[in-house]
Amino acid sequence: MSFNSFGKVFRFATWGESHGPAIGAIVDGCPPGVALSEEDIQPWLDRRKPGTNRFTTQRRESDHVEILSGVFEGRTTGTPISLMIRNEDQRSKDYAATAGAYRPSHADYVYDAKYGVRDWRGGGRSSARETASRVAAGAIARKIIDEVKILAYVVEIGGDPIDRDAFDLDAIEQNPFWCPDPQAALRWEASIDQARRDGSSLGAIVECVAENVPAGWGAPIYAKLDADIASGIMSINAVKAVEIGGGFASARLTGEQNADRMRSGDNGPVFATNHSGGIVGGISSGQPVLVRTAFKPTASIRIPLETIDQQNQDTEIATKGRHDPCVGIRGAPVVEAMMALVLADHKLLHKAQCG
Amino acid sequence: MSFNSFGKVFRFATWGESHGPAIGAIVDGCPPGVALSEEDIQPWLDRRKPGTNRFTTQRRESDHVEILSGVFEGRTTGTPISLMIRNEDQRSKDYAATAGAYRPSHADYVYDAKYGVRDWRGGGRSSARETASRVAAGAIARKIIDEVKILAYVVEIGGDPIDRDAFDLDAIEQNPFWCPDPQAALRWEASIDQARRDGSSLGAIVECVAENVPAGWGAPIYAKLDADIASGIMSINAVKAVEIGGGFASARLTGEQNADRMRSGDNGPVFATNHSGGIVGGISSGQPVLVRTAFKPTASIRIPLETIDQQNQDTEIATKGRHDPCVGIRGAPVVEAMMALVLADHKLLHKAQCG
Amino acid sequence: MSFNSFGKVFRFATWGESHGPAIGAIVDGCPPGVALSEEDIQPWLDRRKPGTNRFTTQRRESDHVEILSGVFEGRTTGTPISLMIRNEDQRSKDYAATAGAYRPSHADYVYDAKYGVRDWRGGGRSSARETASRVAAGAIARKIIDEVKILAYVVEIGGDPIDRDAFDLDAIEQNPFWCPDPQAALRWEASIDQARRDGSSLGAIVECVAENVPAGWGAPIYAKLDADIASGIMSINAVKAVEIGGGFASARLTGEQNADRMRSGDNGPVFATNHSGGIVGGISSGQPVLVRTAFKPTASIRIPLETIDQQNQDTEIATKGRHDPCVGIRGAPVVEAMMALVLADHKLLHKAQCG
Amino acid sequence: MSFNSFGKVFRFATWGESHGPAIGAIVDGCPPGVALSEEDIQPWLDRRKPGTNRFTTQRRESDHVEILSGVFEGRTTGTPISLMIRNEDQRSKDYAATAGAYRPSHADYVYDAKYGVRDWRGGGRSSARETASRVAAGAIARKIIDEVKILAYVVEIGGDPIDRDAFDLDAIEQNPFWCPDPQAALRWEASIDQARRDGSSLGAIVECVAENVPAGWGAPIYAKLDADIASGIMSINAVKAVEIGGGFASARLTGEQNADRMRSGDNGPVFATNHSGGIVGGISSGQPVLVRTAFKPTASIRIPLETIDQQNQDTEIATKGRHDPCVGIRGAPVVEAMMALVLADHKLLHKAQCG
Repeated sequence: MSFNSFGKVFRFATWGESHGPAIGAIVDGCPPGVALSEEDIQPWLDRRKPGTNRFTTQRRESDHVEILSGVFEGRTTGTPISLMIRNEDQRSKDYAATAGAYRPSHADYVYDAKYGVRDWRGGGRSSARETASRVAAGAIARKIIDEVKILAYVVEIGGDPIDRDAFDLDAIEQNPFWCPDPQAALRWEASIDQARRDGSSLGAIVECVAENVPAGWGAPIYAKLDADIASGIMSINAVKAVEIGGGFASARLTGEQNADRMRSGDNGPVFATNHSGGIVGGISSGQPVLVRTAFKPTASIRIPLETIDQQNQDTEIATKGRHDPCVGIRGAPVVEAMMALVLADHKLLHKAQCG
Repeated sequence: MSFNSFGKVFRFATWGESHGPAIGAIVDGCPPGVALSEEDIQPWLDRRKPGTNRFTTQRRESDHVEILSGVFEGRTTGTPISLMIRNEDQRSKDYAATAGAYRPSHADYVYDAKYGVRDWRGGGRSSARETASRVAAGAIARKIIDEVKILAYVVEIGGDPIDRDAFDLDAIEQNPFWCPDPQAALRWEASIDQARRDGSSLGAIVECVAENVPAGWGAPIYAKLDADIASGIMSINAVKAVEIGGGFASARLTGEQNADRMRSGDNGPVFATNHSGGIVGGISSGQPVLVRTAFKPTASIRIPLETIDQQNQDTEIATKGRHDPCVGIRGAPVVEAMMALVLADHKLLHKAQCG
Repeated sequence: MSFNSFGKVFRFATWGESHGPAIGAIVDGCPPGVALSEEDIQPWLDRRKPGTNRFTTQRRESDHVEILSGVFEGRTTGTPISLMIRNEDQRSKDYAATAGAYRPSHADYVYDAKYGVRDWRGGGRSSARETASRVAAGAIARKIIDEVKILAYVVEIGGDPIDRDAFDLDAIEQNPFWCPDPQAALRWEASIDQARRDGSSLGAIVECVAENVPAGWGAPIYAKLDADIASGIMSINAVKAVEIGGGFASARLTGEQNADRMRSGDNGPVFATNHSGGIVGGISSGQPVLVRTAFKPTASIRIPLETIDQQNQDTEIATKGRHDPCVGIRGAPVVEAMMALVLADHKLLHKAQCG
Repeated sequence: MSFNSFGKVFRFATWGESHGPAIGAIVDGCPPGVALSEEDIQPWLDRRKPGTNRFTTQRRESDHVEILSGVFEGRTTGTPISLMIRNEDQRSKDYAATAGAYRPSHADYVYDAKYGVRDWRGGGRSSARETASRVAAGAIARKIIDEVKILAYVVEIGGDPIDRDAFDLDAIEQNPFWCPDPQAALRWEASIDQARRDGSSLGAIVECVAENVPAGWGAPIYAKLDADIASGIMSINAVKAVEIGGGFASARLTGEQNADRMRSGDNGPVFATNHSGGIVGGISSGQPVLVRTAFKPTASIRIPLETIDQQNQDTEIATKGRHDPCVGIRGAPVVEAMMALVLADHKLLHKAQCG
């Protein structure tokens, strides 16, 4: 309901700026008795962590998470869980140019337009660094929905898609791009290297599947499972589009082509197809929940761009700070986290009304 | 925050089923002193009304709206505005088959899976009839943001897109498809006629532009303007995808291609392009807000489809009730309404924090 | 979270003015499969109904409730339940004097100060008529918590308290004051008759007990069961104070006097006393939940009072419309309804987090 | 809307346990450009700080607040403000007895009943230590409503009230009880000393006045200013009752006695009395907002009390940890903080709808 929190009964709020002392999150509404320690959260943060290879920003953060409340003797107590991650490798002087001028398609201008004041160091609150807080909160959400298996991977970078026939789940963890097609991963390595050399950046498309979501999570109309997923995903930095199931392709099918026909199975229906992406009428169908997300190319690039300064004078700007050449790559773990957070919320909501 | 309401300070909740006595909405948080009567709402309902031509469902509803509260001597009082629309032309017997069996890709199965009970008459709560309530609420929202001009139109039906070079705003109101390309409108007439004869249905893509949204509406992170738009739009029946600005196409551009370069203008920046769709970092930039939405083909078709019944037995179902051959057409006024509702909410939120 | 709704997962919103065409409520988040018809709601409305005896306002309303949505074949469907009650006996001309001048201690002045516009007919939105909507919604809440028995009664009118030693539950329904002490009821009859003849009004204190609330409903800190009860009760017209358990009297005891000592019982603790009023640390203890509420005397009286008009000129006002000489009497069923609504919400919240 | 947050547009959430590493709060929705540093918050924390005299708990906490986000170059940025206070003087072993047995009228039992797990060290989340987070958040709220002057003071301890004729505002800061009557302060010194020697505790009544609240803050029905105050105040540890204005005394007046008569003044009405406590119909009237609050005696006492243990066996318990002999004393700054937080929220809400 407010500006920096998300969820209905499993709620979280995040805080913190890129170059402030720390970032963090509060997770509120977590069921009691859940085994939880920093060790449950850290691996997910490590997956998203910057500076681990040359394809992500060279900022080096240990991203060490501290649990400050809500856990006692290794179990959640039902009270709010406060998570904190110290910022370490800040080089605010790299950003001095952005203090007075606006990076095109970055949040610099709109923050000034809205607030009249802006923490320009590393993008402040608009930095993708905020997503570390979500990933930490998402690690707790995963424990609430441990029956569900969530996996996000990159299916396209710079307009170069994977070959769906070469789709290999095992490949995803074996390259720095969460790419399920080893050949595409090789091509992307070259194109991202080139973009980095050019001072440019590339966009990406991330796909996320949640398996074993039971039928019945979600709600009609304004707390639809897909509406909440769309809201959560669209709130991730650089995201410009969200598709559920067939998405735009469904708009090109006829009704009989798009229909996910059903046959009787041992535990309810067996579906012939999954154009619905596991959600119909805002409620999960028991099929895998399938979401596709478009990340625009990183707005901070080294190529000089026409812009204006705070005095509304023409100027040029080229970003000096360290940035991801393709922010979508690190977006994959964030999409996973948001999916977990939405699903955990709806699992509890479903229990409240229909449990 | 609950299941059937939307918005933060300009809020609305809707209620009602397709074949119940009435549907309606409460609009809460409307500023006082706004001139308002049924005549301000009815024209918007008439645009969305079924039964006006052969390309929409033949259900005939006068969709006459009554204001039951919140208005005194022609002005809003700041108290909740209750809107009611009586249902008239219900033929529940048409739907007897759906009482026991599930239409594929319709909400029938998931409602039963979630609630164990379902108003099967005309789809009950999952019917697109609910959107009339939104359109009525949206008419009030428009009065709050009367500086903003919102226009939605259909840019593709059944995989057949408009010719962007033939884009003609004046054409939109001159054909039954809200189509800005007269030639495309002629082709769609043929394809929808064919789909109706075949007992089939078609999908559509709707685009919506909001002009004159000032820079600064929205909020970072979870109340982002684009996140709320995505949530609102995805909550419309049959919607499977939402794009802001360039959307998926932005993921195929480089950083320098996608950047909306700025030059100094009389009132802040003049942008060279609008790949951002008027929203950056969750906050409006002053450019037109641009949203594209995919509607799947209507799930209710006359072609028999494999499915199961409530006893998990194999069967077939063909829908007999009256339905839109292309639900996306009537989706255009609904997208407009949701856009108005989100923008009105953010205008007031902005006043609260930064006014 | 908004201005006219209440609750977290079992939510309701009310709408309507005293002299508008109707009033009503939406109940959202009700579990599915609950047997519900107008007959379940009407008796509770009849208890609160005006015009049934000479001790309440002579406005005659049948208070006939209609269920417009959310129920199918006699059972709730999990979708929003819309309730409507038509207004019938409006004599707006009685209120012409209040259009231009402000009744002291009535909402007339503050509505104008806030909104600059006001539906002056019968108090508009600030009329106690709104509480009929709560009573209707409360009737549904009772079905969600049918294990709980809620009873409200009047323990003091015009400074004349009941004799606690004469407390007789059976007496409550046998007099028009919900008074558990037959002798006090006789005295109140005389004092209220006198007040009515004088054109004056009296205050009252209402006590409410909820039995069989299990231990564990509520939440620490800001969704405390007592905080939500206080909010709900204080939102009733004319209420100026809320006490839980010992309330102000507890502030005059020592720690050892106030402690509710425990002994082992068959199902958890047996408490020696109930100074806590069944709530400790914001969470129910399994003891009866006990709340006491102060209603000020009705602000609308026939005795002329110094006041100002809309032009900020001195004047006098005496109310001519029909009013309760003691609004607290009809407050008892409203307090019961609010208690039911809060408890139903917390029962479902508890299921969400700890179920 | 969730369990540990409060407010509608100026929102805060608190986290932390008595003996965890830290406690804290997030303040969300704060307007940008407000001058803010730790120095603005620390003095308010120091007023509430334990261990400053022998009449409060001997736990010694520096209560040093850190601002971790939301402030840049000495001004708020509009993004969430994260506040953290390290816990320092924890003696968890003092509480070993409370690990297995339940202090009567303390939250020990209900936490176990609800969650099945409990951080027993110093009361965990149910400790009054949480109120430090509110006081810190309240310091920010005060800056939003700097036109308003809020003052809370103690008017009764252990059943011994102040003499209203001896009321002296200047006395409040000159004794350790926030007592406006120097003679009462002397008596309270003796009675609290005695209670401490006896291992007992005393209750208190706190009064709070907010001056210069303009007419028009608040809202009809469920976001009433008094309903939100009641909710906020009742959520403070040990509070059992809340009165607005005359409160229970108003229930003993006639309509003409209780009416706050008005005469024309330079800026709207001049009121003859303030029985309404500055709030009518849920909306501020421009008079001082007046609230009275009952704090029960501290539940943790050294006198042994009958209770049960976690195995539902009879036992006795006497608290050994350090505690306030009269928790109501330190309640005064907390009541002030809650008042500031509610008023700040309603100021912004009013701007949203009527600004």
